[in-house]
Amino acid sequence: MDDRRDFSVLGRPLPRVDAYDKVTGKARYVDDMSFPNMLIGKILRSPYAHARIVGIDTSKAKDLPGVKAVITGTDLPERKYGTDPRFADEYALCRGKVRYIGDEVAAVAAVDEETAEKALDLIEVEYESLEPMFDVRAAMAPGKPQIHEGKERNVSMEIHLDAGDTERGFAEAEYVREDTFRSQPTFHAPLEPHAVLAQWSEEGKLTVWANKQIPFYIRRLLAHTLCIPEAHVRVIKPCIGGGFGGKGEMYALDVCAAYLSKLTSRPVKIVYSREESLVCTRRRHEMTITLKTAMKKDGTILAVKGELFSETGAYNSTGPLATYLATTFLNLPWKIPAVKVDSYLVYTNLPPSGPQRGHGVLEMRYAADCHLDLIARDLGIDPLDIRLKNAVHRGYRTANNMNVGSCGIAECLKRAAEKIKWREKKGKMPPYHGIGIAGMGYLSGVNLVPHTGAAAIVHVHEDGGVNLLTGAAEIGQGSDTYLAQLVAEEMGVPLEDVRVISGDTGVTPYDPGTFGSRVATMSGNAARNAGRDAMRQIKEVVADEMEANVGDLVARGRRIYVKGSPERSMPLRKALRAMQYRDLPMPVVGYGFYQAPTHVPDWFKAEDDPSATYSFGAQVAVVEVDPETGRINLKEMVNAHDVGLMINPMAVEGQLQGSIHMGAGHVLTEDVIMRDGLVMNPNLLEYKTPSPFEMPLVHGIAIETASDDVGPHGAKECGEGTEVSTLPAIVNAVFDATGVMIKDLPITPDKVLRALEEKERRG
Amino acid sequence: MDDRRDFSVLGRPLPRVDAYDKVTGKARYVDDMSFPNMLIGKILRSPYAHARIVGIDTSKAKDLPGVKAVITGTDLPERKYGTDPRFADEYALCRGKVRYIGDEVAAVAAVDEETAEKALDLIEVEYESLEPMFDVRAAMAPGKPQIHEGKERNVSMEIHLDAGDTERGFAEAEYVREDTFRSQPTFHAPLEPHAVLAQWSEEGKLTVWANKQIPFYIRRLLAHTLCIPEAHVRVIKPCIGGGFGGKGEMYALDVCAAYLSKLTSRPVKIVYSREESLVCTRRRHEMTITLKTAMKKDGTILAVKGELFSETGAYNSTGPLATYLATTFLNLPWKIPAVKVDSYLVYTNLPPSGPQRGHGVLEMRYAADCHLDLIARDLGIDPLDIRLKNAVHRGYRTANNMNVGSCGIAECLKRAAEKIKWREKKGKMPPYHGIGIAGMGYLSGVNLVPHTGAAAIVHVHEDGGVNLLTGAAEIGQGSDTYLAQLVAEEMGVPLEDVRVISGDTGVTPYDPGTFGSRVATMSGNAARNAGRDAMRQIKEVVADEMEANVGDLVARGRRIYVKGSPERSMPLRKALRAMQYRDLPMPVVGYGFYQAPTHVPDWFKAEDDPSATYSFGAQVAVVEVDPETGRINLKEMVNAHDVGLMINPMAVEGQLQGSIHMGAGHVLTEDVIMRDGLVMNPNLLEYKTPSPFEMPLVHGIAIETASDDVGPHGAKECGEGTEVSTLPAIVNAVFDATGVMIKDLPITPDKVLRALEEKERRG
Repeated sequence: MDDRRDFSVLGRPLPRVDAYDKVTGKARYVDDMSFPNMLIGKILRSPYAHARIVGIDTSKAKDLPGVKAVITGTDLPERKYGTDPRFADEYALCRGKVRYIGDEVAAVAAVDEETAEKALDLIEVEYESLEPMFDVRAAMAPGKPQIHEGKERNVSMEIHLDAGDTERGFAEAEYVREDTFRSQPTFHAPLEPHAVLAQWSEEGKLTVWANKQIPFYIRRLLAHTLCIPEAHVRVIKPCIGGGFGGKGEMYALDVCAAYLSKLTSRPVKIVYSREESLVCTRRRHEMTITLKTAMKKDGTILAVKGELFSETGAYNSTGPLATYLATTFLNLPWKIPAVKVDSYLVYTNLPPSGPQRGHGVLEMRYAADCHLDLIARDLGIDPLDIRLKNAVHRGYRTANNMNVGSCGIAECLKRAAEKIKWREKKGKMPPYHGIGIAGMGYLSGVNLVPHTGAAAIVHVHEDGGVNLLTGAAEIGQGSDTYLAQLVAEEMGVPLEDVRVISGDTGVTPYDPGTFGSRVATMSGNAARNAGRDAMRQIKEVVADEMEANVGDLVARGRRIYVKGSPERSMPLRKALRAMQYRDLPMPVVGYGFYQAPTHVPDWFKAEDDPSATYSFGAQVAVVEVDPETGRINLKEMVNAHDVGLMINPMAVEGQLQGSIHMGAGHVLTEDVIMRDGLVMNPNLLEYKTPSPFEMPLVHGIAIETASDDVGPHGAKECGEGTEVSTLPAIVNAVFDATGVMIKDLPITPDKVLRALEEKERRG
Repeated sequence: MDDRRDFSVLGRPLPRVDAYDKVTGKARYVDDMSFPNMLIGKILRSPYAHARIVGIDTSKAKDLPGVKAVITGTDLPERKYGTDPRFADEYALCRGKVRYIGDEVAAVAAVDEETAEKALDLIEVEYESLEPMFDVRAAMAPGKPQIHEGKERNVSMEIHLDAGDTERGFAEAEYVREDTFRSQPTFHAPLEPHAVLAQWSEEGKLTVWANKQIPFYIRRLLAHTLCIPEAHVRVIKPCIGGGFGGKGEMYALDVCAAYLSKLTSRPVKIVYSREESLVCTRRRHEMTITLKTAMKKDGTILAVKGELFSETGAYNSTGPLATYLATTFLNLPWKIPAVKVDSYLVYTNLPPSGPQRGHGVLEMRYAADCHLDLIARDLGIDPLDIRLKNAVHRGYRTANNMNVGSCGIAECLKRAAEKIKWREKKGKMPPYHGIGIAGMGYLSGVNLVPHTGAAAIVHVHEDGGVNLLTGAAEIGQGSDTYLAQLVAEEMGVPLEDVRVISGDTGVTPYDPGTFGSRVATMSGNAARNAGRDAMRQIKEVVADEMEANVGDLVARGRRIYVKGSPERSMPLRKALRAMQYRDLPMPVVGYGFYQAPTHVPDWFKAEDDPSATYSFGAQVAVVEVDPETGRINLKEMVNAHDVGLMINPMAVEGQLQGSIHMGAGHVLTEDVIMRDGLVMNPNLLEYKTPSPFEMPLVHGIAIETASDDVGPHGAKECGEGTEVSTLPAIVNAVFDATGVMIKDLPITPDKVLRALEEKERRG
């Protein structure tokens, strides 16, 4: 473990390297790009939720002047794709049938947007309607049609976790409680819609500029779908206006733009409308979770049984993974000696669900931590105490084999409670005021799928400047900045000396990208190792020039000096010059790699460790409920998070605040409202994300456990887990304020009023 | 030495990887690029050849609506630049005085081209005229003003080569002859004019898209000139529409676009007009070379004395290097036991000269090989025989220490003569028909300046595809293709599996770029070594899996097999998959580097080896002269070139043909016509490059000596030296046809007529 007091770049609240360009409007997004002869692509979508395609006539559209190409599903190679090849169930353009309102049927490329839209109107599609199913219950009912062939009862996959002796746990129970919670679908709602610009060269090489979190996966998927080698595909990620998981997949626009470019020999750009971006990409899974817990009266958890239904919509996307994560994260951060969970991923004729910040873990922790507060009330135990009593710790191994390393859950609980003055407030607040607490554990350094390792390259210029090449994708979370800080620290130079090139599969080494909270840990290690490798080469020469031991040399302030003898030093610049004038001058190139020392878990059993280490966190919410209107005033929150080590406190603070914003929206205002498969609020006016004025006062607390060496200097994720406890903390606070646990999100004013009325009626 | 018959990708006439995009118009050049909010920059130029700037008033220009910034020399950091820091004498915008008609005085950035041009008209500059000097004689005359302060007689630098005992050579001479030759200035005349697009980010990082042969040098020069670290500059070379040496430097537009972008916080594009591109960048040096040779009557050269005046125009550019190269290449390819050359680089008030294909060597070889034909005639020796007699050979060391390695000069002479049937034609042709021969040696793998080493990186994808990252700059010569071939050969994959990313200082490892015929040798070695390094990593795993020795494994046809046991093999794809599923899967990244094993020579003495190896060549020209019109009909040529090894025969053929085109233009039609410092033919209508219809029948012969291991598999340059003998071969053919040696290029019809008249007058 490094001595943190020795850092010169890490741990400092440095402004992000892309901040100025973004706030001054200079940052270039996909839609800012334009090429000579560029065509505009548009996609025709299904008006049916479930229907057979009887025939498509594109001849009129093709005849429209200005239209350069029209394609349907049968024009593309017959290749299904999916986030995981085992669950590939999607064509870029539908073949044979459509499965939701918005499903992709045809695509056109034309000289301008107007012509492209006119062409869509001229495509004639004959459908034969099939019975649609709009919820899990309907989809699983006997005798219903299969949305995807061979999927009985429309169940896409099942997970059966059975770890420890749950029967004994329930047999020994002094108290048992069962509750069912529902978490609604929500949009990612990034400000920038999905967009792609594709150019297929005459030589057969494809270049794609796309706002993607995972350029290297997109490369693989495009190669697979278009039947070309990966080496022929280059995916470049320009600036991204927010992802939150929703830009983590290949979508119809990517394949269509590429193929239209191939057909027309011209660059093709497709930018989704706001409606397409919200409805026809992904939303968060609706999950319905039933938990039944066996307790001792002193608050000790003995066993939990659970049942989970995850609604994946028309396609799998990351549904299997989300379901796996929800299932396995029942086991953190509270000790449960025995668990038995049956989880089902179910198809419906609704827009497909996919990964969203927190990805399954959030839904399970919402259910589990609200359930825990009901148990605590029944047993007469303070919610803080029941959590402290059951909190996991370093060295703990869950029933399903998750190994806890560095662990700040207890400290997070204590620091959050202290900050909010829990002991002084809990039970002593005025009527309709409430306080709630929750805790969580999260992935940090996943090995959920193959190839999650990361590589990085550092080029050192002759004047001591550094280029960092990383495949990690900056999507607004700040990775370009903190990865550069890790390199700067190794090289002993200020942050401004490092230039980051990221997220371009043509030029950066392999790194799967931004998902599963893997970047800080895995890309971070790769970047640090690359910097370290470069500095090792330089130090070897300096040691020679200065007649010192390599091990005694320290790089700092653009100098390399002998530890303990600061007078014996050499400027980095001079060292590099010395390297140039040796017999065989070599440019300094450092290479770094990191792979988590875990194995890809079996999703169907959920009995292995999915992450090399875990982050932990606790949140407290203070609310006031207006009994007249049902309106919830979210007044104050504490977000305490075990980040391992703060690479950049300003970036950490941003995540601690931003997570509260997103989580508060999830609990209070956001909902994808659907009627008969049609989204009723597909725009940012009617889909209500909180405004800055609705934000509570947030206290961010970063706990630096820094006590394992999984992440760079012990750093862990702090951009996704940070949102996980927001939901149950607020819901539990409303429970505290009203005495009613509302088990169906979002907690809109009408639900509060109804709950209060029912409570009154019951007396 | 590799067994050439074993190659699967090398030695094949594969189409260039960029060919399709270029012929279909898809290739994107700088001027095809456009960014939101982009401004257009323009430069105000001096109408005086030599004048003091008394004052500049930019206020009216600044007040013009749409003008966003106006800068003059004093707005920029006071930093002189030059190709070599020892000879830096140029400001991006003039300070204090102007030195040629076209010198840069001010620059503007405006919302469109029209406004920018109007703004130039509104800038008021007061000049005080100084005496201009338009040729070397005038510039060196006593009492003339100094164009650059401190340069006596306007001599910028002198080289005094004195090797061997020239006095003894002349004392022992049986025959002595002296001639003076003049080689005129010529334009590079690439079809694409010089262009740049610069964006200075708010964070202070500069990105420049520029059509440059040498992105990494441009990075260094921009950093130096703008007083920012190299790490803050990224130079990206898009497609280039021809360079020929003329895009090998930083020019005013680069600095101005960058600085105007800084001032305006907007992207700025500057595209030179055809006139600016021709006149205000660089032209070839006018050189006047006097050679005096001491001979034995049997044709043995005993010693040479020379004097050389190189006219550099208003600035040094690469003048010192050109002068050095001209001086040192008197010594190849004919054995000269003693040489004494005094060379002078002289400033004038003409547009600056700079590097052009052949760069000094061409001018010297023109003079020397024409001089040799005059000697041969006087001594009654066949021009072929006198060359064969004096030709250098492997192991020969010139008087000034140039070490000859692999050497095909004799074979080039013989094969060229054979092809044209020299023995049957020479002296036996009809009147006014003539045949001429010449030979040359050229640089291949220079170490003329520091930092000429090259690095390359190879990323291997999981499906066996390969990305090659090289800093070498594809400028039309085909380097992207042949570097990819070198990697493909090492990796055992077809060319199409390799994707090349080149010439982007942000992402590719260091490589100084395309100059000095260094790419095939040095970048080629780096690329090959990178591929070899990647394949070594793969073979180690395969050896383990297959229980074989690494040394026994061969990669070919996307498979790795045991030498001699083709049945024991594994597909590359499977090998890579095996690597992914090992305990610690690593992406395969190969790194390669090459540095020539020579030292940077002392230009002032010209007594060291400037190149790791040398290419050789011989050319024969057949002409018919029309005695009525003086018109020369260039009928047929042979271009025999010792390429070491043909990486791509189609690319070699292209160079052998293209060089003849450029050289024939130099001899016959091209000339920069100047009157009082003003270029009279600054456009492609009046500056006459040959059309395809004026091309002779060309026989290209590639000699594969492949007998040293300096270049990859022995490959040497074949894009620059290939033009060197074109000039003397044609001039000697005209000499043969007319009996008159015209010593002043180009040989226009009027010169031929005058020569014929004079010959007749003399009888």
